Amino acid sequence: MSRARRPPDELFAEARAGDRSALARLLSVIERGGPDARAVGRLSHPLSGSGYLVGLTGAPGAGKSTLTSATIAHLRSFDEEVAVLAIDPSSPFSGGAILGDRVRMQDHATDAGVFIRSMATRGHLGGLTLATPEAVRLLDAVGRKWILVETVGVGQVEVEIAGKADTTVVVVNPGWGDSVQANKAGLMEIADVFVINKADRSGVDQTRRDLEQMLDLSDLDHDEHGAGWRPPIVATVSTTGDGVAELWDAVLAHREHAESTGLLERRRTHRIREELREIVTERLRERARELCTGERWDELAEQVLDHTVDPWSAADEMLAPVDA
Amino acid sequence: MSRARRPPDELFAEARAGDRSALARLLSVIERGGPDARAVGRLSHPLSGSGYLVGLTGAPGAGKSTLTSATIAHLRSFDEEVAVLAIDPSSPFSGGAILGDRVRMQDHATDAGVFIRSMATRGHLGGLTLATPEAVRLLDAVGRKWILVETVGVGQVEVEIAGKADTTVVVVNPGWGDSVQANKAGLMEIADVFVINKADRSGVDQTRRDLEQMLDLSDLDHDEHGAGWRPPIVATVSTTGDGVAELWDAVLAHREHAESTGLLERRRTHRIREELREIVTERLRERARELCTGERWDELAEQVLDHTVDPWSAADEMLAPVDA
Repeated sequence: MSRARRPPDELFAEARAGDRSALARLLSVIERGGPDARAVGRLSHPLSGSGYLVGLTGAPGAGKSTLTSATIAHLRSFDEEVAVLAIDPSSPFSGGAILGDRVRMQDHATDAGVFIRSMATRGHLGGLTLATPEAVRLLDAVGRKWILVETVGVGQVEVEIAGKADTTVVVVNPGWGDSVQANKAGLMEIADVFVINKADRSGVDQTRRDLEQMLDLSDLDHDEHGAGWRPPIVATVSTTGDGVAELWDAVLAHREHAESTGLLERRRTHRIREELREIVTERLRERARELCTGERWDELAEQVLDHTVDPWSAADEMLAPVDA
Repeated sequence: MSRARRPPDELFAEARAGDRSALARLLSVIERGGPDARAVGRLSHPLSGSGYLVGLTGAPGAGKSTLTSATIAHLRSFDEEVAVLAIDPSSPFSGGAILGDRVRMQDHATDAGVFIRSMATRGHLGGLTLATPEAVRLLDAVGRKWILVETVGVGQVEVEIAGKADTTVVVVNPGWGDSVQANKAGLMEIADVFVINKADRSGVDQTRRDLEQMLDLSDLDHDEHGAGWRPPIVATVSTTGDGVAELWDAVLAHREHAESTGLLERRRTHRIREELREIVTERLRERARELCTGERWDELAEQVLDHTVDPWSAADEMLAPVDA
């Protein structure tokens, strides 16, 4: 039998036993979506829940990949295993960046304790919103204790994906104001830990003051992000590794906070609800594609064009089968 | 009765009689969406169809607004009336640009033959995909013969919106390659007319050669964009108005081509089908929000979190009411 056709459960057993190429194949199955992806999900789901998910985001060029690489090195120094998912929601427009990142991460390519994978949308953003939690669940189920999800950019989708982690790290640079002006509020909302990377450049103190000031103005006590936690600000130089140990200590401190206060459980509940809603929406979307075909559909489109039926009445008729 | 509460049909009658503030209110109703927006749509739809829709897009900074302003001046010089919709799909991230554009367009603020309005998403992109055709239909129904839709940027959504026009103008600059590298293919696909704006800068000839070469490589005979039409390339300096008459002549030539070959009808049929599909999808999305509430929903989410039910089986159960 050709390897490409091997069923998900065989691949899953091998991935559980440590086979990285089986794991990579399963992630491709998830990326493609469809019934096979669901089969992988059904295998992963009962075995997941012990991995810990760290999200990492920041503007392009903030040095996230180098920082991720340095973080991996730090984790490996005390023998922790780690999996990294690099998510690129706007892949058709920035494929180069991800490729560069992967090349940089080759430092760890031969280390069996490290698994790195980039994922991109195939067409629309909804795909990634669904595929990311499934990929995380798989990595968790095959025994990866630390899962880092890195997103490129500070747009709505990137922030959403990174913000759905157990602990979220937001990477900025000295003078960050210019590059992320637009979505500062979104970043403030998701950050559990701030990193000022490239801290060998000038402007670190000013950036720290800016962040502190924004934190002063934020409502830090809202339920989602946990009362009693003020995001620490860590300065790093990822190319030399300076500050990376402090960054990881901040992540560990947040994990302890999240576990002890019930925040972690609340977040995971919230996450699973959002995922369920997303699955339901996706199924309805498939249904819409099925509904919008056939003779009656052609007729209605024609009538709308002739102004004899308005678009909303036409939609009502197409939706009648699901409006039980 | 307070003006804010006046019903859509009254506002619609006034807008038809030329009242710009009534028109502006109706556009706000469309932006907000919901039942009132549908009421406006039902009023507009039977009366629409005689306006002609020109899309205009290009990278930020390409000079689209100045070009639009110069085009308005050109149209007004032979007394044509025009409405402009400036669409900003990523509004939360570039509100400043649109504001600047509106200020520049103030030249025409006191001219009753010109109506300018910017529209932004309220939350998600789907909103704009639905609101734009409704806004165009309203402008059409109140008697605007030329409707210009300008989108800011060359991302997927911007290109999609601008590409749904009767005639689409793509604005580039000398040396454009760097700024739109990512989505050249998308722009080539939608362009009926190319404009090299800021043609007083160096590099116009090279840019023209690049475009011609890409056109040589493109499949120009595909159905959607019409056999027998090769997008002309017009050079403009929008700040002085140079080339704007030629640009408009190119638009008129494309309109004649589209009308005489049946292309216009095919495009409008395609557009209405896409809009219908979008309406159906949006209704299903509303349905999903309704389904994913209540006691059983809470229970299922809890069970998924406890790993006693997998997410797909939970979704199946929530979807049962619509899986007739």
